[in-house]
Amino acid sequence: MDKKFRITPIGGGVCVVDGIYAGGVNAGFKKEGFDVGFIRSDEDMKVAYLFTTNRFQAAPLKYVLRRGIKTTNFLLANSKNANAMTGEEGIKDIEEILEYLGTKIKVNNPIMSSTGVIGVRIDKDKIKKAVDKFDFNEKDSNKFAKAIMTTDSFEKEIAFEVEGEFGRFKIGGVAKGAGMINPQMATMLCFITTDADIPESEMKDILSEVNEHSFNAISVDGDTSTNDSVFLLTTGKAPYNKEAFKEALKQVMLKLATDIVRDGEGATKLVAFNVSGAKDVNEAKTAAKALTNSLLMKTAIFGEDPNWGRIASTIGASGVECDENTLTIKIGDVLVYDRGDILFTPEIEEKAHKVMKKDSFSISVDLGIGDGEFTAYGCDLSYEYVKINAEYRT
Amino acid sequence: MDKKFRITPIGGGVCVVDGIYAGGVNAGFKKEGFDVGFIRSDEDMKVAYLFTTNRFQAAPLKYVLRRGIKTTNFLLANSKNANAMTGEEGIKDIEEILEYLGTKIKVNNPIMSSTGVIGVRIDKDKIKKAVDKFDFNEKDSNKFAKAIMTTDSFEKEIAFEVEGEFGRFKIGGVAKGAGMINPQMATMLCFITTDADIPESEMKDILSEVNEHSFNAISVDGDTSTNDSVFLLTTGKAPYNKEAFKEALKQVMLKLATDIVRDGEGATKLVAFNVSGAKDVNEAKTAAKALTNSLLMKTAIFGEDPNWGRIASTIGASGVECDENTLTIKIGDVLVYDRGDILFTPEIEEKAHKVMKKDSFSISVDLGIGDGEFTAYGCDLSYEYVKINAEYRT
Repeated sequence: MDKKFRITPIGGGVCVVDGIYAGGVNAGFKKEGFDVGFIRSDEDMKVAYLFTTNRFQAAPLKYVLRRGIKTTNFLLANSKNANAMTGEEGIKDIEEILEYLGTKIKVNNPIMSSTGVIGVRIDKDKIKKAVDKFDFNEKDSNKFAKAIMTTDSFEKEIAFEVEGEFGRFKIGGVAKGAGMINPQMATMLCFITTDADIPESEMKDILSEVNEHSFNAISVDGDTSTNDSVFLLTTGKAPYNKEAFKEALKQVMLKLATDIVRDGEGATKLVAFNVSGAKDVNEAKTAAKALTNSLLMKTAIFGEDPNWGRIASTIGASGVECDENTLTIKIGDVLVYDRGDILFTPEIEEKAHKVMKKDSFSISVDLGIGDGEFTAYGCDLSYEYVKINAEYRT
Repeated sequence: MDKKFRITPIGGGVCVVDGIYAGGVNAGFKKEGFDVGFIRSDEDMKVAYLFTTNRFQAAPLKYVLRRGIKTTNFLLANSKNANAMTGEEGIKDIEEILEYLGTKIKVNNPIMSSTGVIGVRIDKDKIKKAVDKFDFNEKDSNKFAKAIMTTDSFEKEIAFEVEGEFGRFKIGGVAKGAGMINPQMATMLCFITTDADIPESEMKDILSEVNEHSFNAISVDGDTSTNDSVFLLTTGKAPYNKEAFKEALKQVMLKLATDIVRDGEGATKLVAFNVSGAKDVNEAKTAAKALTNSLLMKTAIFGEDPNWGRIASTIGASGVECDENTLTIKIGDVLVYDRGDILFTPEIEEKAHKVMKKDSFSISVDLGIGDGEFTAYGCDLSYEYVKINAEYRT
């Protein structure tokens, strides 16, 4: 093999790691299906997290930040209520819930994580009843993945076993997304477990670095939520190799992140926007993110319309350094604009249209100026997006 | 009267000014209706203009900038083709068209202005045939207003007579909008004529200042076009009073700008987002513009859903300084969130919902931090927007 390690997909999600349990129950927030879940471990896990850059961070995020939690053995999560814009009461609600949890099972620095409607106090009694229903010995990552879903249409789960000369570790992840997705830090909610013994000093840096090219590279609707969170939890029981771990983490996070886009509210297509030749990586990111967020791009993608003029216009409007005479634009492998030459004949248009008929394709823009590169992942905007979001509360 | 001048609405659009003519013809770009038009004057007019900040400025904009045009007697405009991303050929096409125009009527520094699809060479023959059909003595602003429309559903025209101790001048304007509207400089196209004798040194400053709170304050879809232009043309035959002119220009530009939002692609509602109490005016503008561009806000408005949590989340995500405990949010006159207190009872929700049923209403956010204020104008996002933009080229 090329690399000194091998990454093998296996089942199990966040429960892939020995000593980690997960489950979900219905607490009555959703008419049917799971809506409250947990991840817990026999012994304390080290935890690193990235939270939203939204100034109105939700109560669960404030709770974790205030306590400066670094190790935990319990993570409680719910959907349908974000516990955001709820002030000090929102934090007290969490304290009361976690105190109740402590009467049922021994918890160390338990963490709560919420997603759903903003600006409504959480129903503590419903959560407590959910806690009563938990089977703490359950190892069902899929139930947990379902419990955190809001407008998601499928659960997002993945797990790998990673083996090399250093030994073997496992890594698993679960995420939810669908709407209010333009993470500046993380997606709505993502939980990653591993047994790799990552040095505490490296946990957050590795998480941030990989996050930049996974969750920070996706957008469904350009709205950054109050609750975006990525958690990395480790039992520390298995050997750690930095290169192998980073690569495995990348695969976990990129898969979960692109699944979120694929399952974006009303989305029918996943598009990778590759920007290269930018002045620097920041400008490449600005241009790539602009393409993911442009309504005119998103509707053209929905219409399978190879309207390359909108690609150019979006790049031009993004404010990055660019020039008509150094720019090239490709839809899939089809070159449609080449440094001042419009190549858009009816034949080329038909080829580009064929690319856009696929569920997943790429749009590549080379600015021809410098070495900056960034790939961002976006989706189309459909009637269904409007329907879902115009009727969200009803 | 309170002020030293009186502003009276009158008819006539850009032809309100003596010695200014306008018209439109069908050149075959549109199946029916006008698609090429002109504004011209007996004697040279002084001209000031503001162009898009999009880095890929269209050929007509480059043409004007290269020549540094300061006076003109002829403005030729077309819809359906933006003449953007067309390189040097696009500029040569303009030169050839304007040269041909010169064989039909005496022109001094003629200007061309285009809107429509990006990345397609303009059909010079069609434009020349349109020139052949022009009735140069026509004074029909409405025909011109129709000729520049793309997906607009109604023509945008206004004219005032302004009278005071200083004397009397007239001012008229025409604009088009509908899509790719998030001007950083101006809207798609706007033409304002007057006879007020504005000092050349003041023309651009006044235009910029008023533009900041009119065209720069609107957004339909957050996309900044390659062709955005505002032209201010004056014959200089009437007396000028700065205060009166600025006020009249403000009324002209604000009416045309809000008409563009009202007629935004698929829009059913016009919303004024008043942000006050921001750290400074820039932060107020950032927050107000973020509200106009948030898909979650736009779909909530379409759904007439007083989902104030999305207002808060958008403000928080915009990056401006803000705090849950100093923030207030009003939908129309209905206070829904007051510095930490969620006032959102079912009765309040019903009242707020009633406000949102109207065609036009305001959402007011006071950040409670400083003195910065800005009002931005936006619209909802409907199924129709998706339809128009997914099918634009077909």
